[in-house]
Amino acid sequence: MTIDRPTLLLDKDKCLDNIRRIATKVAHHGVRWRPHFKTHQSHEIGRWFRKEGITSCTVSSLQMAEYFAADGWKDITVAFPVNMLEADRINRLASAVILHIMVCVPGILPQLKKQVRHPVRVFIEIDTGYHRTGVNPDDHETINLLLEEIKAAELFQFAGFLSHAGNTYQCRGGVGVEAMHQTEMEAMKALRKRYNKKFPDLILSIGDTPSMSIVSGFCEVDEVRPGNLVFYDLTQHAIGSCQLDQIALAMVCPVVAVYGRRNEIIIYGGSVHFAKDFLTTADGTTHYGLVVKWHDETMEKLVEPMYIKSLSQEHGIITAPRGVGNIKPGHCLEILPVHACLTADAMGEYVTLDGIPISRMGKCTFVS
Amino acid sequence: MTIDRPTLLLDKDKCLDNIRRIATKVAHHGVRWRPHFKTHQSHEIGRWFRKEGITSCTVSSLQMAEYFAADGWKDITVAFPVNMLEADRINRLASAVILHIMVCVPGILPQLKKQVRHPVRVFIEIDTGYHRTGVNPDDHETINLLLEEIKAAELFQFAGFLSHAGNTYQCRGGVGVEAMHQTEMEAMKALRKRYNKKFPDLILSIGDTPSMSIVSGFCEVDEVRPGNLVFYDLTQHAIGSCQLDQIALAMVCPVVAVYGRRNEIIIYGGSVHFAKDFLTTADGTTHYGLVVKWHDETMEKLVEPMYIKSLSQEHGIITAPRGVGNIKPGHCLEILPVHACLTADAMGEYVTLDGIPISRMGKCTFVS
Repeated sequence: MTIDRPTLLLDKDKCLDNIRRIATKVAHHGVRWRPHFKTHQSHEIGRWFRKEGITSCTVSSLQMAEYFAADGWKDITVAFPVNMLEADRINRLASAVILHIMVCVPGILPQLKKQVRHPVRVFIEIDTGYHRTGVNPDDHETINLLLEEIKAAELFQFAGFLSHAGNTYQCRGGVGVEAMHQTEMEAMKALRKRYNKKFPDLILSIGDTPSMSIVSGFCEVDEVRPGNLVFYDLTQHAIGSCQLDQIALAMVCPVVAVYGRRNEIIIYGGSVHFAKDFLTTADGTTHYGLVVKWHDETMEKLVEPMYIKSLSQEHGIITAPRGVGNIKPGHCLEILPVHACLTADAMGEYVTLDGIPISRMGKCTFVS
Repeated sequence: MTIDRPTLLLDKDKCLDNIRRIATKVAHHGVRWRPHFKTHQSHEIGRWFRKEGITSCTVSSLQMAEYFAADGWKDITVAFPVNMLEADRINRLASAVILHIMVCVPGILPQLKKQVRHPVRVFIEIDTGYHRTGVNPDDHETINLLLEEIKAAELFQFAGFLSHAGNTYQCRGGVGVEAMHQTEMEAMKALRKRYNKKFPDLILSIGDTPSMSIVSGFCEVDEVRPGNLVFYDLTQHAIGSCQLDQIALAMVCPVVAVYGRRNEIIIYGGSVHFAKDFLTTADGTTHYGLVVKWHDETMEKLVEPMYIKSLSQEHGIITAPRGVGNIKPGHCLEILPVHACLTADAMGEYVTLDGIPISRMGKCTFVS
């Protein structure tokens, strides 16, 4: 395989290992895995999950739901606050698949019910500490109001409570993840206890990658939805979710200039390739990626770490504090991404170690 | 026009005004404008430049050069350190258009010359203070070495000196831009003086949007290459390059939740739409976009500014310090982007105020 420009390599074996590891763990707990497909956004990779027995998935937009429905996924949760402007897409999807939507504030379902023509299952989102969206688990008044709104429409069916402990992303080295997960579990279990009588089939759905990777007991929920773990990345490594050699994606970038005196290497690979999420290391260094040696089956960390210290549109500057060694223009460097979801979105496709391109969902186009 | 998901609106009139203003200014100085097309990456918008008499352009990758060559551009500069791995693309392009490449370190051209089959014009990049790539203007030893490398290949022709004062992006409120520009001009003029006798046709090419927008005199160079000013953005506004109402792009995002008590509004619009460049306001607030009212011909700043305070993949959180007012789910908000180049790259297309989609170059696909 010849690489002459920034290319996002996918190690299929590592990816399959990541899928199987969690599939086994989840099955062991008797829980359903409804993996989040927003990370990979690929029919092909979705099929790898299907081969492991996964039959339902999570997505973050209705367009993504349409994309996966087109590849035979029949049970889809859109884990994003329902957008009442997209009633047409909801109808198209709900006519073809088991569609779960998510609601986090009152006032939307009464509008939506006027337009919905097919059965839709509705999750109530619970905020267990991330404070992005969702109802406070103690706010029974709002929960009851939402349940009333669901009940008021024949085509809406209450699915259960859904949470995303995104606050675990602030953890480092695994510390704190278990506690946040326990807080989430207590909140969710209390909701089951409170509403179980009226809704014996209600589902508890949780699912951040750090919790699902680190904690061992989540048999008291019905389903989990982690998605990033299909690839993992440097952020997950910093959180403590994975080993460095479990990261299944690496960007390969040509070196275009070396400045020995500055201890800097310029790569063809910028913010339109990596995206711009960054990490801060223990010593306060901010960076956008870590250079590794990633050949065939093995991934080696360099003895002296080299990071991307800055990104402009197409350039990356790598800092090599102990010198640039024998790296020269024309070489390619392998770099682990800080945030796999955004890097994959920026690149738009993957290439396996065998040189086979794997496509992703295209960017949506406007229809007036 | 019905907007139901994040949509990148382009005000064509503002865009044309921006193009014409700089075209007039540049023509007034008797200088050639070779606009950087990495910002818009669109055949259609390129044609708007052509209508203003522009016949040459700048790009940041060979793929982008191929894209514009396919639409009839015959004189193209790739203002990115030449990547020796892409000799095939260089050959294809150089057989069809006047191709300028750029070199910033010795050692690359001797490799490339073995593969080049068509005439290629070569700029030497000069670093006048940005310290990303380029030769220090006083480093005549390296400049002479690069000139020798150019001379050593019959198909290489020395084009001149090229610089990009990207350091002006650190300026705020216009302060400092003029001084950085002067430093750049002095360096470039000194190089002309030194090398003019041997190379009487050498070109001095400069071109950052802040300098080109703010300074009034640049008649001593031969060409300028600013590109961002086709759209402008909040970063350029903070630097002092433009007025807020000259920004020609705005993202329109549906509101999906309102949290009155938190003074926060959740929009459908995240890092895959806006990209993640941020700005820090005078009071230290970091943000990813500014909500405005942008209707028809007029763009109004809100009396109480509301910013995007954080972005996840598809969610944006807008903070409304003085309250959310009458904003409700189902409304759409118009938001000026922090960095137009990256937002446009993330979105992949524009939509005019008349609802007409304008496409961009697609992401490159891997060919093994």
